Amino acid sequence: MTLIFRWIAVLGAAVIVLMIPVPVGITPASWHLFAIFAATIVGSIVRPLPAGAIVFLGVTALAITKTLTPAQALGGYAEPLAWLVLSAFFMSRGVLKSGLGRRIAFVFIRAIGHHSLGLAYALVSSDVLLATVLPSNSARAGGVVFPITRSIAEAYDSTPGPSARQLGAYLLFTVYQCDVIACATFLTGQVSNVLAVRLAKDATGIDISYAKWLTGAAVPALLSLAFVPWLLMQVYPPAVKHTPDAARMAAAELHRMGPMRREEKTMLAVFVLVAALWMTAPLHHIDYAIVAMLGVGTLVVTGVLTWNDVTGERAAFDVFIWYGGLVRMAGALGDSGLTARFAQASAGISAGWEWGAALAVLLLVYFYAHYGFASITAHITAMFTPFLLVLLAAGTPPLLAVLFLAYFSNLSASLTHFGTTTAPIYFGAGYVSQRDWWRLGLLISAVTITIWTVFGLLWWRVLGWW
Amino acid sequence: MTLIFRWIAVLGAAVIVLMIPVPVGITPASWHLFAIFAATIVGSIVRPLPAGAIVFLGVTALAITKTLTPAQALGGYAEPLAWLVLSAFFMSRGVLKSGLGRRIAFVFIRAIGHHSLGLAYALVSSDVLLATVLPSNSARAGGVVFPITRSIAEAYDSTPGPSARQLGAYLLFTVYQCDVIACATFLTGQVSNVLAVRLAKDATGIDISYAKWLTGAAVPALLSLAFVPWLLMQVYPPAVKHTPDAARMAAAELHRMGPMRREEKTMLAVFVLVAALWMTAPLHHIDYAIVAMLGVGTLVVTGVLTWNDVTGERAAFDVFIWYGGLVRMAGALGDSGLTARFAQASAGISAGWEWGAALAVLLLVYFYAHYGFASITAHITAMFTPFLLVLLAAGTPPLLAVLFLAYFSNLSASLTHFGTTTAPIYFGAGYVSQRDWWRLGLLISAVTITIWTVFGLLWWRVLGWW
Repeated sequence: MTLIFRWIAVLGAAVIVLMIPVPVGITPASWHLFAIFAATIVGSIVRPLPAGAIVFLGVTALAITKTLTPAQALGGYAEPLAWLVLSAFFMSRGVLKSGLGRRIAFVFIRAIGHHSLGLAYALVSSDVLLATVLPSNSARAGGVVFPITRSIAEAYDSTPGPSARQLGAYLLFTVYQCDVIACATFLTGQVSNVLAVRLAKDATGIDISYAKWLTGAAVPALLSLAFVPWLLMQVYPPAVKHTPDAARMAAAELHRMGPMRREEKTMLAVFVLVAALWMTAPLHHIDYAIVAMLGVGTLVVTGVLTWNDVTGERAAFDVFIWYGGLVRMAGALGDSGLTARFAQASAGISAGWEWGAALAVLLLVYFYAHYGFASITAHITAMFTPFLLVLLAAGTPPLLAVLFLAYFSNLSASLTHFGTTTAPIYFGAGYVSQRDWWRLGLLISAVTITIWTVFGLLWWRVLGWW
Repeated sequence: MTLIFRWIAVLGAAVIVLMIPVPVGITPASWHLFAIFAATIVGSIVRPLPAGAIVFLGVTALAITKTLTPAQALGGYAEPLAWLVLSAFFMSRGVLKSGLGRRIAFVFIRAIGHHSLGLAYALVSSDVLLATVLPSNSARAGGVVFPITRSIAEAYDSTPGPSARQLGAYLLFTVYQCDVIACATFLTGQVSNVLAVRLAKDATGIDISYAKWLTGAAVPALLSLAFVPWLLMQVYPPAVKHTPDAARMAAAELHRMGPMRREEKTMLAVFVLVAALWMTAPLHHIDYAIVAMLGVGTLVVTGVLTWNDVTGERAAFDVFIWYGGLVRMAGALGDSGLTARFAQASAGISAGWEWGAALAVLLLVYFYAHYGFASITAHITAMFTPFLLVLLAAGTPPLLAVLFLAYFSNLSASLTHFGTTTAPIYFGAGYVSQRDWWRLGLLISAVTITIWTVFGLLWWRVLGWW
């Protein structure tokens, strides 16, 4: 029956909007659009069906009610950013399939995994390195790093239950928390970052490139990636401090894997090529999506991926369907004048505020609102544009507002054991209790908010960004 | 090494085009477009990779060479027709999964399957009925009808080898030949029909609706569906003439299946709804694609399909990728003026021909060219537009030219044991020798060409279409 209530919430959102009189200056069609958008957002929060299905229904509703023409409603599926996401997911499959992801992790572990803190850094480094190109944190932190982390814990007889805190709980929780930071570090760290960039561009005209996103994140990201594993070692310490077996295991695995096979080398070359082309995009102006498609094309031509691997990549098509639909709806809302109207209204609300105070209050609200979201995507879709508009109305420098919201959308996933796609995997392993997760998640959130605010603001000042 | 030669053919096609001096009045960018298009077409014929992968590479090449912008190159993925195809494939999954397809076949068999000719009509009828909505002939003739046909043959001890001609060979070959006719009967009978419609619209401005396609096909299709099983009964007769066990088996299966479950009823309702909305499109102007999406949405909301079923539908995404890419390339060629230039040139070639003579000669060439194609799609992509333009230049009434080419593209798949996606399935069962297939395929081609030409022309005259 809970399913019925979810559907009632979804339809209710549309009905409520439709019952409000259409504001002056807004066309009835735009108001219908807003009603369908509201239902889609509520749907992607309460999820009577997976998010992709909700958006599919939303797009269908837009066209069937003739709110948009079919070509307009489907327009998002020709967006290069949708194809960036799709292609990056295909590349993730290549990293998993070729074994490159495992090799990277084992190389780090062999090098610095002799004690538990080093081991944590090794695992985190693997995840961060993969995040340069792979926006699927399920593939990266879930598919590559998680099984290795768990098998190391098990090798030290740390399993769910009394022995969980021996080693496994520390490692898994640390990797998860740092994966969230990795999500925030790269434009491709997490799949809805491209959505945030797109929404930011619609609202402010500011175009955040891969390089710009990374430059802005670099200093606070490095500081938090360095600090969080150390901090958790103090407040959530494992009993096992020395882990020579982990390094030995990694060495043995690497030995067993032997030298890199052709597929793995090809994957590595594609990985490096794609990352390099993304970072240098302002020089050659090849679109991110096309670079990613070139990467996928290379993997298919060289046989690292079969075409069957590509077309069988469920998660990729799921994300493609929701992304293409949402981005189009958000764009159409902008075109309809509703977004501008909201901005005018919010200018009234925040009139007379210091922008610094507005920023502080609104960012905290934005961040901790994530307690109510089971995905970063839902959070961004529902709250990014309205919060951005209010911040702009209060006089916040646009670039600052955009960066804070974009980074915080990811960092807030630290809070709960369902904060982003990988959380249920790490929580589901059974090492970390919910109580610990929420308690420590809150602590980490205070730490990352502080680091990203203080050092972020300093760093962006140094860069002359405000 | 044969793979290398295929790639050489693909790249060679582009190189040859690029070596030809750019015709006056055509921009270099358009000529690059043509080179990439030529390579894509050759690629989808010689297939060093599956067709979807070839098109993916073609789209990437278009954007990376800056022949088109990324948004232009990807524009086809926002085409409603691409989403029609995608959604119709999702519906096919529902027909398979819910068991509705099997039930339809068993109902027909129970009713008229008491002797082998009736049995053939029953199997063919199931396939034709499904073709009203399902463009995936792999799902329809391959997934639903094929296993039933084979198990009936086996029940009569007809297996590959000496007993093949007892019953199995006749049934399988007849069903295949009639599936090819079903492909030609409906706009949704086969996946590249929508491509033909799109190409026809670009070249002539004529918009072939679902209803118009079906109206044009109705008389010749019914005649050939009635005649071909009977003809094969004369020239390729099975030893077993009476098949009471088939009808009994069907009755037993239906008994075992029990009354329709909720999923099956829902699927049936969606099936009828979609077909009805497609046929009445000129009345309500809801786009075909949106109707199909409504159907899929209903199946997902009611749980007939899970979202996982949808995103796991490999074949659907494969087709989506090639369709969206090809349609865009063809459109861009039209915009570039190259298609118009070709039309002018061909006007010179066919100047002074009677259009009737031109039609007869060119249609035969078009039809029998299918000996060289392993898919209807490749055939249409490579030959439809040029042949249409030459026919128009010779003065053929445009609608006639379009209909003949569209229907013949499908009917020509009768010729070989690799003529369309289902051919390898039916041939691979091992009942029909290659010699018989080609010999009888040639016979059937003469029959269908005659029926569709004579009765087609008559019928279209009655309709006032020429």
